[in-house]
Amino acid sequence: MSCAVYICMREFIVVGHKAATDGQFSLNDLPGSAGRMDIMCRCVNSALFLSHDLRRNVTIYLILLGEPEPPKIVKFSGHDVRYLNPDERSSGSLIKKALELKARIRWKESTPGVWVRQGNLEDLLAELNSDEGVGESVDEDTGNKLYYLHENGTDIRNKMEVTLPQRATFILGDHVGMTSDEEQKIMDAGAQSINVGPLSLHADHCIILVNNELDR
Amino acid sequence: MSCAVYICMREFIVVGHKAATDGQFSLNDLPGSAGRMDIMCRCVNSALFLSHDLRRNVTIYLILLGEPEPPKIVKFSGHDVRYLNPDERSSGSLIKKALELKARIRWKESTPGVWVRQGNLEDLLAELNSDEGVGESVDEDTGNKLYYLHENGTDIRNKMEVTLPQRATFILGDHVGMTSDEEQKIMDAGAQSINVGPLSLHADHCIILVNNELDR
Repeated sequence: MSCAVYICMREFIVVGHKAATDGQFSLNDLPGSAGRMDIMCRCVNSALFLSHDLRRNVTIYLILLGEPEPPKIVKFSGHDVRYLNPDERSSGSLIKKALELKARIRWKESTPGVWVRQGNLEDLLAELNSDEGVGESVDEDTGNKLYYLHENGTDIRNKMEVTLPQRATFILGDHVGMTSDEEQKIMDAGAQSINVGPLSLHADHCIILVNNELDR
Repeated sequence: MSCAVYICMREFIVVGHKAATDGQFSLNDLPGSAGRMDIMCRCVNSALFLSHDLRRNVTIYLILLGEPEPPKIVKFSGHDVRYLNPDERSSGSLIKKALELKARIRWKESTPGVWVRQGNLEDLLAELNSDEGVGESVDEDTGNKLYYLHENGTDIRNKMEVTLPQRATFILGDHVGMTSDEEQKIMDAGAQSINVGPLSLHADHCIILVNNELDR
């Protein structure tokens, strides 16, 4: 495989259409009153955990679109994150702390390696594109690549064998998938559609498979 | 890939060396007082969930070796299970209900598709072998196969391409790995060592990768 762990920075973006946007939710009811926050929590685990270490080259962005203060983005940086354990309550607790801050349009750090800002998917794609060149504007063979995880995409095993991205960004939907408006914005940002196998899987399972493909 | 979803029965066996063996643990503290029961819960999710369905051809066995009443085995059958949601508390709650029953050496159903018995890894391997022929005694090309997930094993992508098991059983350790005694019993049962990639991963992540390999 062409994308070695030490050179390929990885980013995951997950959209939680119902996920709570303040810190009032209960850690005892992540799927219910927190708006399927359990999905977001498992995605953090899938993105960042190795057996006895963290993936320092991975960042995950959670786009939270539920009530009462949408849209917000919470970022976990594997390079800097602390106080994170693999269980759902642990990542849920750090998300809750981030959402207890007053979010603005600039990133604010809530606990080490966890950040929050106001913003939606379009805002994040614009930021990533302007800051560091994700998308079609960059060099095809050596630059940064944007991928949209979708059932109708190209098999990642075929896609990854011919690419050498310095940074790879993967966008995933939650249990309700993406809206057509979101899909349009993703495609406008230059994303290529990929899939991870013949069956439709949860977002956190897809992240495991993407990480493994890039590990190889 | 040779192992189609509709013909290949899959079994996962996960050993939880510290996992609680009665129903007194708190769902609010699965990693702590429940003895890393969070690992077991995530393994159930990884084994059984598709995006909007369950894997009906998968069974997962949790070998629980913590206090106060070891050893016990809890079985989730994807074919029959009900009341299971993807979050850790959901599988944790069904495990807790199973452990509230008085376990004996024969299986007892606690909720639909969830069963409990007394027993350890050796007991389970003996049962699977005598009932249905897992291990080296069965036909090499068309029978049942036993695999041990281990860092030093053969890459699953090489292993699976040449095999056609009717039933494949995969054994995984928890965060502390297997004891040498357990490893000996696994090898005595005819297991082949495989791995799922170049990095050491959590058991639940390995299960995702095995399922995906068999899906293909």
